[in-house]
Amino acid sequence: MKDVTNLDDFEVGFDIPAKPGMDEADIQTPCLILDLDALERNIRKMGDYAKAHGMRHRVHGKMHKSVDVAKLQEKLGNSVGVCCQKVSEAEVFARGGIKDILVSNQVRDAAKIDLLARMPKYGCRVIVCVDDIDNVADLSTAAAAHGTQIECFVEIDCGAGRCGVTTTEDVVAIARAIDAADGLKFSGIQAYQGAMQHIDAYEDRKAKLDIAIAMVRDAVEALTAEGLKPELVSGGGTGSYYFESNSGVFNELQAGSYAFMDADYGRILDENGQRIDQGEWENALFLLTSVMSHAKPDKAICDAGLKAQSVDSGLPVIFGRDDVEYIKCSDEHGVIADPDGVLKINEKLKLVPGHCDPTCNAHDWYVGVRGGKVECVWPVTARGRAY
Amino acid sequence: MKDVTNLDDFEVGFDIPAKPGMDEADIQTPCLILDLDALERNIRKMGDYAKAHGMRHRVHGKMHKSVDVAKLQEKLGNSVGVCCQKVSEAEVFARGGIKDILVSNQVRDAAKIDLLARMPKYGCRVIVCVDDIDNVADLSTAAAAHGTQIECFVEIDCGAGRCGVTTTEDVVAIARAIDAADGLKFSGIQAYQGAMQHIDAYEDRKAKLDIAIAMVRDAVEALTAEGLKPELVSGGGTGSYYFESNSGVFNELQAGSYAFMDADYGRILDENGQRIDQGEWENALFLLTSVMSHAKPDKAICDAGLKAQSVDSGLPVIFGRDDVEYIKCSDEHGVIADPDGVLKINEKLKLVPGHCDPTCNAHDWYVGVRGGKVECVWPVTARGRAY
Repeated sequence: MKDVTNLDDFEVGFDIPAKPGMDEADIQTPCLILDLDALERNIRKMGDYAKAHGMRHRVHGKMHKSVDVAKLQEKLGNSVGVCCQKVSEAEVFARGGIKDILVSNQVRDAAKIDLLARMPKYGCRVIVCVDDIDNVADLSTAAAAHGTQIECFVEIDCGAGRCGVTTTEDVVAIARAIDAADGLKFSGIQAYQGAMQHIDAYEDRKAKLDIAIAMVRDAVEALTAEGLKPELVSGGGTGSYYFESNSGVFNELQAGSYAFMDADYGRILDENGQRIDQGEWENALFLLTSVMSHAKPDKAICDAGLKAQSVDSGLPVIFGRDDVEYIKCSDEHGVIADPDGVLKINEKLKLVPGHCDPTCNAHDWYVGVRGGKVECVWPVTARGRAY
Repeated sequence: MKDVTNLDDFEVGFDIPAKPGMDEADIQTPCLILDLDALERNIRKMGDYAKAHGMRHRVHGKMHKSVDVAKLQEKLGNSVGVCCQKVSEAEVFARGGIKDILVSNQVRDAAKIDLLARMPKYGCRVIVCVDDIDNVADLSTAAAAHGTQIECFVEIDCGAGRCGVTTTEDVVAIARAIDAADGLKFSGIQAYQGAMQHIDAYEDRKAKLDIAIAMVRDAVEALTAEGLKPELVSGGGTGSYYFESNSGVFNELQAGSYAFMDADYGRILDENGQRIDQGEWENALFLLTSVMSHAKPDKAICDAGLKAQSVDSGLPVIFGRDDVEYIKCSDEHGVIADPDGVLKINEKLKLVPGHCDPTCNAHDWYVGVRGGKVECVWPVTARGRAY
C-alpha cells in the first residue's frame, strides 16, 4: 500500500483515476467526480442556514468518509466537527485533525470500546451514543483505564426503528447512570429520524418529525427537571433539517447528503412541491462512466456496474440527458437504453448515483473538477473502515 | 497506505479485522471470513470436475479479487489462470504472478489499451475480448508500440444481453481482422451466458444454454471452415458449467462463485431439484456481524449494513439459524427480527451475502478461519480496481 499524500506513487488507470492538472476528458472511468463549484455552493448554503438558525452543524462524515471534504465543510460551511458511525471511521477523522467527533452509534464490543477510549489522545472531543444502561459501566472502565473522558449522548429512537430507546423514562435512567460514572460525561441526546428522510411529500415528512420532536421535547424537559439539561440535542438530515432547526428543541444538525446529493434524495419535494435537486441543492457528486460496447444498435454498455455504486435505492440517473436511460446494472456493466443509437464508444456520461453513502464507500478516490480540469484528487480516507 | 504484506503495520479494529493466530471469537466485525476447509473442498471439487471433463479451468478472479485465492485455485483446483473484467484488475493478478490472464471484457479507451499492451511484460499471457471490428486497429497499434502480443477472443452475446456480437458473420469478420493485425493473435471465443446463471430450475437453465451452445457451435464451425479454428472456447459459470463441459464445443470454464457461494446462487436447483448450497457446493464465505443494540425486545440491530455488502440480489441469510431473520439493511445497520428475544449484545452471526462479487469488493480483507482460529488474513488485492 502506498502513501495517499504522495500521488506520484499511483499510476493513472491502474490505481488512481486521474491526477491534478489533467483534463477532465482524460479521467479514467468508472470513478467518482466532484463538481467543486457545486460542492462549495452546497456547503456554504447549509453552513449559512445553520448559522442563521443558531444551530451547530456537525456534518455527517459517514456520507463522504473524507477528511478533505470535512475540512472544506469547516472552512466554508461553519461546521463544528463530524459525526460518523464507526470507531474505525472516527479514528481517521481524529488522525486527520477533526476536533469534535460523535460516533452516532452504539459501541459494545470490548476491543472497540478500548479503541474509542484512546481516541481523545488525538486531541479531540469524543462523543458516543448509548441506548442500554448496561453499556455505561464498560465505557466508564475503558475511559478510566486510559485516563480520558468519553462524552455520551443517550440515543432516542424517534421513528427510525434501529438503535435507541423509546421512552423518556429510559432516557433519564441512562443519563443518570452516565452522569454518575467515572470518565463519562452526559452531553446530550441523539435523535435522528432516518426513516422519514426519503418520504417524497414535505407534509408527510413534517408529520413524522412532529412526532419525533414531541418525543425529544418530552425527554429534554424530564432531563432538565432532573438537573441533567442536555448541552446538545442532535439530529436532522437533508430531508428534515428545517424541522429540527425550527423546533426550539434541537440545537445541532447532522446533515450529510446535502453536500453531494443523490438520485433518491433528489426526488423528494420541498415545501413548494419542487424536487430538492432543482433548487434547494445541486448535484455535486457524479459517477463518471464510459461507453465501452455498442454491439446492439439500441443498447449501449457502460463500464459502471454494481462494484462502482450501490443500487439499493434505485438505479442511477444519467445527468442532463433524457434521450438515454440507465436500465440495468450487473457487476461491472451498465446497460443503457439508447433507442436512437446516439451514444458513441468512449463517450462519457455523468451518472447521479441512487444512494451516495454506499456508493462513495466503493471508491478509493474523489476527483475534484472545475472548468474542465482536474483540480484535486482526494482519498476516500475512511473507505472500508467498517469496524 | 501501508504494505499489505506486512500485517504488523495494521491495527486490529481500526484498519484490519483480525491477525493470524487470533481466536475466531476476537475477530472485529463486520468483516468477511472464509471457512478454509469449505473453500478448499469447493476448489478441489471444481478442479477435479474440470480435469475429469477435459476442460481448462480459468477461474473468475473478478469474484474474489484476491491473488491468494487465485494461487490456492492453482495449487488445489487445477486452474490455468484467471479471467477478470478490468485492465486494472488484470494488472494486480499479473503483478501477483498469475501467468494466463483473460480480460473477459471490452477495452476501448486509449489509455487503458496502452496499459493492457504493457501487461505481457510481467511475463504473462494476456487475452482480451473484442466485439467491434473498430477496436482491432487500436489494440494492434498499442501492441506494436510496446513490442508485445495481445491475444484476442471474439465475444459472442449468447444471451446475457451485454457485450458481444450476435451473428456468426460478425464473429468471422472480427476474427479475420484480428488474425491479419500486427501484434494480435486470434485465440478463441468468449461466450458467457450470464443471464441464465441464476434461474432456479435446472431444465430452464439448460434450455438457455442449449441456445447458447448452438450459437457458439455455428461460429466455431464457420471459423474452422475459414482456417481460423479457435484454440480456446471459453465460458460457463457456477449455474451452467456442466452444460458447457458436456457440449463438445467449449474447452475452457470461467466459474467464479462456486468457490465462495452466496445466498442468490444457493437458491438455484441442481438436476435433482436440490439447492446447490445443500450438496453441490458449500458456503465458504460469510459476512461476520455482531449484535450491537437490542433496545426493542423483538428486534436486534447488527453492525453489517449496505457498506459491508451488496443487497442487489436480496438480503443476506443468517447461516445455521431459523429463529432469527435479517429483515432490513441500512448504511451501517442490519435489522434482525428476533421474535423470541434470543440474541445477546455482542453475539456474532454469520451472514451468507446475497451476492458475493460486489460484497467482496466492499472489503479490504478476507479472514481465513479453521478450527476456531484465524489462520490467515488476505488482502482483497484488486479491491477498488474498477478502471
